[in-house]
Amino acid sequence: MALKKSPLAPAAFPDFPIIDGVRFAAGNSGMRYKGRNDVMLAEFAPGTSVAGVFTKNAMPGAPVDWGREILPHGKARGLVVNAGIANVFTGAAGRKTVEETAAAAAGLLHADATEIYIASTGVIGEPVPTEKIVNLLPRLAEDLSADAGMRAAECILTTDTFAKGAVATATLGGREVTLAGFCKGSGMIAPDMATMLAFLFTDAAIPAPTLQALLREANAKSFNCVTVDSDTSTSDSVLLFATGKAGNAEPSGSDDPALNDFRRALLEVMSDLAQQVARDGEGASKFITVRVSGAESDAAARIIALAIANSPLVKTAIAGEDANWGRIIMAVGKSGEKADRDRMSLRIGGILVAENGVKASAYREADVMPHMKGQEVDIDVDVAVGDGSAFAWTCDLTHGYIDINADYRS
Amino acid sequence: MALKKSPLAPAAFPDFPIIDGVRFAAGNSGMRYKGRNDVMLAEFAPGTSVAGVFTKNAMPGAPVDWGREILPHGKARGLVVNAGIANVFTGAAGRKTVEETAAAAAGLLHADATEIYIASTGVIGEPVPTEKIVNLLPRLAEDLSADAGMRAAECILTTDTFAKGAVATATLGGREVTLAGFCKGSGMIAPDMATMLAFLFTDAAIPAPTLQALLREANAKSFNCVTVDSDTSTSDSVLLFATGKAGNAEPSGSDDPALNDFRRALLEVMSDLAQQVARDGEGASKFITVRVSGAESDAAARIIALAIANSPLVKTAIAGEDANWGRIIMAVGKSGEKADRDRMSLRIGGILVAENGVKASAYREADVMPHMKGQEVDIDVDVAVGDGSAFAWTCDLTHGYIDINADYRS
Repeated sequence: MALKKSPLAPAAFPDFPIIDGVRFAAGNSGMRYKGRNDVMLAEFAPGTSVAGVFTKNAMPGAPVDWGREILPHGKARGLVVNAGIANVFTGAAGRKTVEETAAAAAGLLHADATEIYIASTGVIGEPVPTEKIVNLLPRLAEDLSADAGMRAAECILTTDTFAKGAVATATLGGREVTLAGFCKGSGMIAPDMATMLAFLFTDAAIPAPTLQALLREANAKSFNCVTVDSDTSTSDSVLLFATGKAGNAEPSGSDDPALNDFRRALLEVMSDLAQQVARDGEGASKFITVRVSGAESDAAARIIALAIANSPLVKTAIAGEDANWGRIIMAVGKSGEKADRDRMSLRIGGILVAENGVKASAYREADVMPHMKGQEVDIDVDVAVGDGSAFAWTCDLTHGYIDINADYRS
Repeated sequence: MALKKSPLAPAAFPDFPIIDGVRFAAGNSGMRYKGRNDVMLAEFAPGTSVAGVFTKNAMPGAPVDWGREILPHGKARGLVVNAGIANVFTGAAGRKTVEETAAAAAGLLHADATEIYIASTGVIGEPVPTEKIVNLLPRLAEDLSADAGMRAAECILTTDTFAKGAVATATLGGREVTLAGFCKGSGMIAPDMATMLAFLFTDAAIPAPTLQALLREANAKSFNCVTVDSDTSTSDSVLLFATGKAGNAEPSGSDDPALNDFRRALLEVMSDLAQQVARDGEGASKFITVRVSGAESDAAARIIALAIANSPLVKTAIAGEDANWGRIIMAVGKSGEKADRDRMSLRIGGILVAENGVKASAYREADVMPHMKGQEVDIDVDVAVGDGSAFAWTCDLTHGYIDINADYRS
């Protein structure tokens, strides 16, 4: 099925920088997609540290099991990603695919297999033709190039309608460091750790434990705030690789103030990528930001924000440019978290719609219609019981989602 | 918007019996719908006992607040229901509507206002034109008739495409008693107490505390097992009225074995009505039964069953008659409940699809295709960690749901 590019896509993929110590290659394995690349290899210079977060889905794919096992070593030399078949619910055969892929890449990169990360995305439950990946790897190893980041970003897509990249620089330990990343994700997107696949690369020198702390922190405010359809993938992985080639003074730990600028850059890149996932949500025509304040805790606010962001009735109303705000009230109420019906307030596009248990007296639907007709819809709810706040990014629910998912495999 | 009758509708509304002690009337208030009735009045004979369960949504409508307040009295003389405007998030005005409606009906029926139950369904956040209901009530009181059950059932519908009724008889305390009920619900349907509006009537003599215990028990195995879109309504109410006119010997309590046959009949009627709600789910083309066994507890099994039944990806795959079973595995995994990936099994239409962490060796997709193409889809999952079991009824997610909900108010 040929999908039309999301109307919410950024104007262009960013100018993807060379990250000293990282090289990419992409090729076509022929396992499922014709006429496009579907396997990427990345090589990292010796000494590269790594951090990762993985799906909390209880049916993780073999690549996620593998990543969890090798992450404690803290070192990475390679990354192999394939699109089309997810290597999930594939039992012992799926495990063998991962081990053979890691061994093959390790041989080519003169590394240990425990330094090779694997990620797969696509259909669940189908066996991966391991030899199609392994046979392709030698050519990819020859093709490795520092400026092939965009080609790598393109080859991991599935129902995505555009490649998603983001770039930032930061000052760290006396040097300017570069951070760049790409990700994929469009359906089966719900925040419970990471969202599908995201890979981040930096030339900064940051030891693995510190890198892990930084990644977890930024992930909670970026990928974990995205939902497209409330369906948490079995493959979600976010990996951050730091080559150390910038030669900066290493930070002493995750609370070292020297990290402030890098922390800002990391959140910037991850937020940008996470928003791009919602902007490419299957069938999306509107990008929606839900902000909740006044909740019992930040955790409660997050649950309320996601109840709104995942409500099919809220999402279809927005698709129809219908300011049917009662559905937002319903979603707050169904969340199970504390909210004061008779004191809470609701704004759409900054305009006060409801407060103190009733429609706001000055509210006229015509006032919010220009906002509803735009591509960005903002919902702000104050539930009036405490100080907790959170946000969620999502998209509307349209005929496009049904089109894509009623015959994804055909 | 004219909606096509669901292909999953029963052949006909049942022959609605006369329940001694109950009379109905229906009329058009003109508040929102043209050319159809939208307000019903029911009168109950003095001495009628009542039981009720209400939504757990934290933003309940004024009629739900009212019902909760008067339920402890245990006696009912009347019921007023309107369709079109839900009287939710309407503040003090909404409360006034309920009080004035109850007072007006009480005057006409020579009852106390605390014996009059109210229910409303429709748009949230709009004020109810109370006078349109109150002015209609005298005519309805004059029209009351024991054989107008079907007219009452029809006038409470919103996006429903057919009226939903069910009837049963039972032997109780030396008499045959009759039980009949009707309900409405099609969207904003998720089980968290009751599902939209359901009203049950019997001539049995059963004291209110016993009636309440019976209702709660049957509700847990019927309406609370239905989901259409995971969105829990702010108006959900199930009320059971028992006039006592059958003259049976009253049961001594909810554990009186004399109640066994009535208990069976109650579950039968409520299960029938609950299934009709899923069969009239907005845009439904398939009725889906999800059964989960082998969970840590019945509660855990229920959460897993609902994770599957609410997954947009599972529901769209079924709409597309696509046996994309990996999405069911994903939904089990996202539920947050314990499941053994490497020992669990999955059947579709009774055919073993996956077991022990992989696709079943004998499974061929062609074997389940006749089942996928039918109107009833059965999913059975054994998660292999304990003895808990549960089920859920739902429908598929189609273009019809988007059509209905992107412009419900227009």
